[in-house]
Amino acid sequence: MNPKATISTLPPSIRLSDEGLDAAVATVATNEYGEQKPVYIAAERALTIYLDRREIVTVMTLGTQPELLTLGWLINQRLVPDISAIKSIRVNWETESVAVTTHGAIEGLEEKLGKKTVTTGCGQGAMYGDMMAGIHKINMQAPRLDQSLIYAVLKSLNEHNDIYRQAGAVHGCALCKGTHILRFVEDVGRHNAVDAIAGYMQLKQITGEDKIFYTTGRLTSEMVIKVAQMGIPVLLSRSGATHMGLILARRVGVTLISRAKGRHFLVYTGADKINYDAIPVSKMHDRSETSSSKRTSSHGNAA
Amino acid sequence: MNPKATISTLPPSIRLSDEGLDAAVATVATNEYGEQKPVYIAAERALTIYLDRREIVTVMTLGTQPELLTLGWLINQRLVPDISAIKSIRVNWETESVAVTTHGAIEGLEEKLGKKTVTTGCGQGAMYGDMMAGIHKINMQAPRLDQSLIYAVLKSLNEHNDIYRQAGAVHGCALCKGTHILRFVEDVGRHNAVDAIAGYMQLKQITGEDKIFYTTGRLTSEMVIKVAQMGIPVLLSRSGATHMGLILARRVGVTLISRAKGRHFLVYTGADKINYDAIPVSKMHDRSETSSSKRTSSHGNAA
Repeated sequence: MNPKATISTLPPSIRLSDEGLDAAVATVATNEYGEQKPVYIAAERALTIYLDRREIVTVMTLGTQPELLTLGWLINQRLVPDISAIKSIRVNWETESVAVTTHGAIEGLEEKLGKKTVTTGCGQGAMYGDMMAGIHKINMQAPRLDQSLIYAVLKSLNEHNDIYRQAGAVHGCALCKGTHILRFVEDVGRHNAVDAIAGYMQLKQITGEDKIFYTTGRLTSEMVIKVAQMGIPVLLSRSGATHMGLILARRVGVTLISRAKGRHFLVYTGADKINYDAIPVSKMHDRSETSSSKRTSSHGNAA
Repeated sequence: MNPKATISTLPPSIRLSDEGLDAAVATVATNEYGEQKPVYIAAERALTIYLDRREIVTVMTLGTQPELLTLGWLINQRLVPDISAIKSIRVNWETESVAVTTHGAIEGLEEKLGKKTVTTGCGQGAMYGDMMAGIHKINMQAPRLDQSLIYAVLKSLNEHNDIYRQAGAVHGCALCKGTHILRFVEDVGRHNAVDAIAGYMQLKQITGEDKIFYTTGRLTSEMVIKVAQMGIPVLLSRSGATHMGLILARRVGVTLISRAKGRHFLVYTGADKINYDAIPVSKMHDRSETSSSKRTSSHGNAA
């Protein structure tokens, strides 16, 4: 089993429970030969967030890092300004709930909750409307980025997909500084993984400007918004991007690199910031790997 | 370009606009050789649903079948009982909105909206709490299913992933009767694709008991709930399942087949309903295809 995540150091002002659960559950499945075989399957748990005793939302999660998920979700949804507003986060799996208490009541909470727009679908997020409100103020300066660093990051990431390898049905996100993977999070909801990383950045007081954000999932509008709000100017994905994701990335100054796998990638915006210092030698060979037959067989990878 | 979807026949009682848009947008990306090349990228549009002039939700969608998406979303969320309650559905892309009018006001709408629980993440859905309420009444009798039919359905589906092939970043869902694909829908949100199929079933008055539901996405709790509510007893996915998806499938009597690709599949529940009439001959050969190196390289397919 993948060990549950634990939380090490904390700023003095916040108290967190440490109720991360195992990511995978053992079960038995029948394969195409009619044989029963033991398999692992990704956990999925409901976790209802209470903010100062008020029920806010129920998230479906793998459950490995519920405190960081809660913290990051509240901040990414702009319901709390930052970690200093929060006194404690306590998860109780028996009631499938997490109680968040603040130092003082959150100002304008009712108004924030009242204004919310709920979006659905895989490229979704609750309270999207509220989140969009802040996006126009963001104007990042994406750093120059070596192609060789992109390849090195992808190589480092290969060692960080334990739960997917074991049970599938999860998405992974990573916070990278150079080739160093500061945090890798997998969850059943790809937005949960982003939120847990936002929680981690808050907890460790890490800023985004010199980081790269990697995700196995698609670069939709909400993914770009969240990462921009986390101050991270480079977004790297093994999946594709949507047109609205691209429009938003251009607006806020995020370098958007998608379909990053092996030696391949496509830069949708920010291509002028890339230093092409590692152009693949065997051009013909590389291109043959992206033949249409391969594309066809990977339908469903858009994640 | 993939032609936009059009709606052909309607029951006399409902009026629908026909405002489906193109699924893909042309843009330019820079590849790993530093070369600019024209590519297609999946569209993503905001669509705000108004029910009898009341703002309900904003969904992010590809936008090809906005009327069916709206219809299916309202029914899957249990906000309207069925299509007979609806007078018209009119999409206006200039205001990114869809106006739904009913024959009479929806009874208890305020209460339904007030009770909502919003879930997030990829395995998400607005108003999940409300949806769970009906699940305990469902007890389906999954039909016997030939392994050869599973293979034939997968083969038929190969011709139905136009948008993914062109632009990526979408999920596909299909409603199948035998090997016949009655409807194939792609969308940026995988739950949107399910909802659009629910809308199609309502519009055509198609029942689910003799159908197979296919998805490129993961079988999470909400996917199982939606398909069960649509009365479809067989759920087939090329991706994995979550533990809560499995628990719910067992409870409602859905046959859950995941990782279905080529000759491979894993039956998580309902294996006794499968007639193993097409067990692959070359067992060793088949197994070598699922080697760990291949699993590793496909991280992010969990969709």
